[in-house]
Amino acid sequence: MARSALGANIGYSFADPALLRRALTHRSHGAHHYERLEFLGDGVLNCVIASELYRRFPDSGEGDLTLLRASIVNQQSLVTVAQGISLGSHLLLGEGELKSGGAQRPSILADALEAVLGAVFVDGGFEAARGVALHLFAAALERADPRAAGKDPKTLLQELLQARRIPLPKYAVIATAGDAHEQTFRVECVIPELNIRTQGEGASRRSAEQAAAHRAYELGIRT
Amino acid sequence: MARSALGANIGYSFADPALLRRALTHRSHGAHHYERLEFLGDGVLNCVIASELYRRFPDSGEGDLTLLRASIVNQQSLVTVAQGISLGSHLLLGEGELKSGGAQRPSILADALEAVLGAVFVDGGFEAARGVALHLFAAALERADPRAAGKDPKTLLQELLQARRIPLPKYAVIATAGDAHEQTFRVECVIPELNIRTQGEGASRRSAEQAAAHRAYELGIRT
Repeated sequence: MARSALGANIGYSFADPALLRRALTHRSHGAHHYERLEFLGDGVLNCVIASELYRRFPDSGEGDLTLLRASIVNQQSLVTVAQGISLGSHLLLGEGELKSGGAQRPSILADALEAVLGAVFVDGGFEAARGVALHLFAAALERADPRAAGKDPKTLLQELLQARRIPLPKYAVIATAGDAHEQTFRVECVIPELNIRTQGEGASRRSAEQAAAHRAYELGIRT
Repeated sequence: MARSALGANIGYSFADPALLRRALTHRSHGAHHYERLEFLGDGVLNCVIASELYRRFPDSGEGDLTLLRASIVNQQSLVTVAQGISLGSHLLLGEGELKSGGAQRPSILADALEAVLGAVFVDGGFEAARGVALHLFAAALERADPRAAGKDPKTLLQELLQARRIPLPKYAVIATAGDAHEQTFRVECVIPELNIRTQGEGASRRSAEQAAAHRAYELGIRT
């Protein structure tokens, strides 16, 4: 597919098309790859989403805003956006990477999407990158729910499972480490019906359960 | 001290002075505190420093840029900047917080500094916030050294100590956790001459040592 089609998908026309080409070039394809732009784009995307959440949710505290941002800027969410603009078909990959399915690999799609945002920032400045990011993440921003963000992961997971009539998860301590006054707990969360098994660590059993529940919830909402 | 003096220190005059007041208000002082602005400012600062490092170091890869950013955007660095503009004397704190030294507490100084940057972003947009951040972090950016960033923490720490004729640090595994195929190691790094004792965790003994060495290096360069 022509790169100009990708430009149309993201709603931006590059003054310097070489920047877009670089944003789409995996390191397996050549030295002028996207990794520096990815570093830049990660910072730009986090800033844009933070400022948009700050604006949209004037009653949400810092903790909720942080959770909301994490629910929008994560690999799964980036992959969904990348798939929506057919980013994979525009990637420049080395032969081995191409044959092994690199164009559909989540980590590559997510990284290249950040690189594209970095390239827009270099090409057109912050406001241009902001416009593209808000366009691409419009659906994710619409789904962002500060009421959900205020709930702890175990509660969210429980509600998710109840809504689907699935039995509640089982939590078990599988390891502890450290002295008595500074222990670390590792807890496993198991939901056999969804084939989910996650682990979490924390300074208390409860916080380790919350960490494991958080990962299970992230997997569960995509199942 | 008048808040206008702080404005002069950061090189920015607020169109809406209430934003600056909010950025300086700790939650112990009232409901209109700085935490939402801190969330925003954190994103803005990371983005500004990322874009500046991208520009200044065209030959550095993503890994080095990430390390460089972490060497500039961290609590110690933020506290140094906050102290340089006498931020503590402008903070609005509750009585208890004031008496217990809250105006000099590192976490409060760092958070409030981010909030000030968030306030500039709301008041004047990205370019205004970028100008203030680059002004405040000019010295930290000057110190940023991509050659150091490319080295692993144990090597950096060793070189730091050798330059000061201090014996090399001692590393010791103090805890392990998890099954054999998925172990976590906790390692301690001790430098008696600098009164430094840090810990690091990792999936291998080596990576745990690197994590502990990283923390020891961060402490060591300030000693």
